[in-house]
Amino acid sequence: MSGLWYTEKQTDHFGITMKIKRTLHTEQTDFQYLEMAETEEWGNMLFLDGMVMTSQKDEFVYHEMVAHVPLFTHPNPENILVVGGGDGGVIREVLKHPKVKKATLVDIDGKVIEYSKKFLPEIAGELDNERVDVRVDDGFMHIAKSENEYDVIMVDSTEPVGPAANLFTKGFYAGISKALKEDGIFVAQTDNPWFKADLIREVQRDVKEIFPITRLYTANIPTYPSGMWTFTIGSKKYDPLEVSDEQFHEIETKYYTKELHKAAFVLPKFVKDLTE
Amino acid sequence: MSGLWYTEKQTDHFGITMKIKRTLHTEQTDFQYLEMAETEEWGNMLFLDGMVMTSQKDEFVYHEMVAHVPLFTHPNPENILVVGGGDGGVIREVLKHPKVKKATLVDIDGKVIEYSKKFLPEIAGELDNERVDVRVDDGFMHIAKSENEYDVIMVDSTEPVGPAANLFTKGFYAGISKALKEDGIFVAQTDNPWFKADLIREVQRDVKEIFPITRLYTANIPTYPSGMWTFTIGSKKYDPLEVSDEQFHEIETKYYTKELHKAAFVLPKFVKDLTE
Repeated sequence: MSGLWYTEKQTDHFGITMKIKRTLHTEQTDFQYLEMAETEEWGNMLFLDGMVMTSQKDEFVYHEMVAHVPLFTHPNPENILVVGGGDGGVIREVLKHPKVKKATLVDIDGKVIEYSKKFLPEIAGELDNERVDVRVDDGFMHIAKSENEYDVIMVDSTEPVGPAANLFTKGFYAGISKALKEDGIFVAQTDNPWFKADLIREVQRDVKEIFPITRLYTANIPTYPSGMWTFTIGSKKYDPLEVSDEQFHEIETKYYTKELHKAAFVLPKFVKDLTE
Repeated sequence: MSGLWYTEKQTDHFGITMKIKRTLHTEQTDFQYLEMAETEEWGNMLFLDGMVMTSQKDEFVYHEMVAHVPLFTHPNPENILVVGGGDGGVIREVLKHPKVKKATLVDIDGKVIEYSKKFLPEIAGELDNERVDVRVDDGFMHIAKSENEYDVIMVDSTEPVGPAANLFTKGFYAGISKALKEDGIFVAQTDNPWFKADLIREVQRDVKEIFPITRLYTANIPTYPSGMWTFTIGSKKYDPLEVSDEQFHEIETKYYTKELHKAAFVLPKFVKDLTE
């Protein structure tokens, strides 16, 4: 048995460590250091620049919670944009909504898409669906060129360092607002409240200046720093807390439920304080 | 700077690792291997048998969520028993409730109490409060000898191996029922749903056979396995989901809120499935 362990330092002084069966692929792409490995605990995993992006065992949490919260909030989500998300997990969840006519994925790094299809097939498997348009392109520029086009935009980015740095700026949120229709919604992953409180506070402040409805919700992702992940919603018209029971329909999930849709917005006090 | 790191293997193939400033105390007690260390990320930490028990930075989550959920559910919690919990954190939270007249702490290992007072003073600081009766004794035996005595019993144990093994048995829950008054409530920490699903399912089944109201709730504890911790409540009369707004009073917390009191019981689907 291999003695190989993969350690992600989530802060300078804290990390997680995972037993590796074997490395599947390693490559410096044009944008980031990409690693795929088979782990004992979490199945196959994708790492970018030394950080866990997704694992076969816990990927459902992130992907369900990014997709279903805004999609059940919007009464008629037909045209969807996913920025980042080259592993395809968010797209897979988006397609569970029959109202969705078209989902565009824009990831800057084609290698993420390529190797996710190869080593994470149950995550990336819907990227070839006929309702999906996959583009290898700069999400920031794609947003800047779009106007009054999307019902829902989902920002499934890496951390605010490296290729995703400009996806955490006020200019980007303003671009998202312009790219959305007049009743559009966006959601972005916004890291964790234990180590990145300042980031969450800043994003909340920026999004509030542009969107009349700004909300923060959380989910438990064991392979992400602190196990508690946050998502920020900016919405022009529909409030995720005011979804009526009739708006929900049955979908197959392992984490999301219609009850959790609302409970996920009920924040621990120290997290709630970041939104005020 | 020290190159010392402390690694807890939370499963055979996954763990967390923490930069250590210095080791404060190490001792094989009569019951377990006790370590206190000063960490860079989490402040001072207590480890028992190589597992994180508590840290200065995130202890508030566990201690608030063990104490306040049952104490706000019971309309008149006067006589409280804490089994385990020698670090004193649960006691500190219990004393925030003015209705509590007496809180008895029974921990089998006096060394945990001694070194928590020394190195975790803001956690253990209320153990000398006049409303508190600290006993170094076997919690299982204390429960077995008690009858119709307590309003609320809180089981703040280590994992179901070593000295706490018999605190996860149906016989123990039957003893708790006997030790409680006719409208009593108990809560126990019951590990995490990612790596210990079978344990949670078993505890739910056992507690349901004894208590008419059985509930599971969760909290995010970043230094515990998976970051999502569960707590099982068994109650003879009062339902934690039916607490009226008037029953809450203001207390100082960093995690618990009256809104979270109910939201914490709304479970992700794969966790909810363990309770059915």
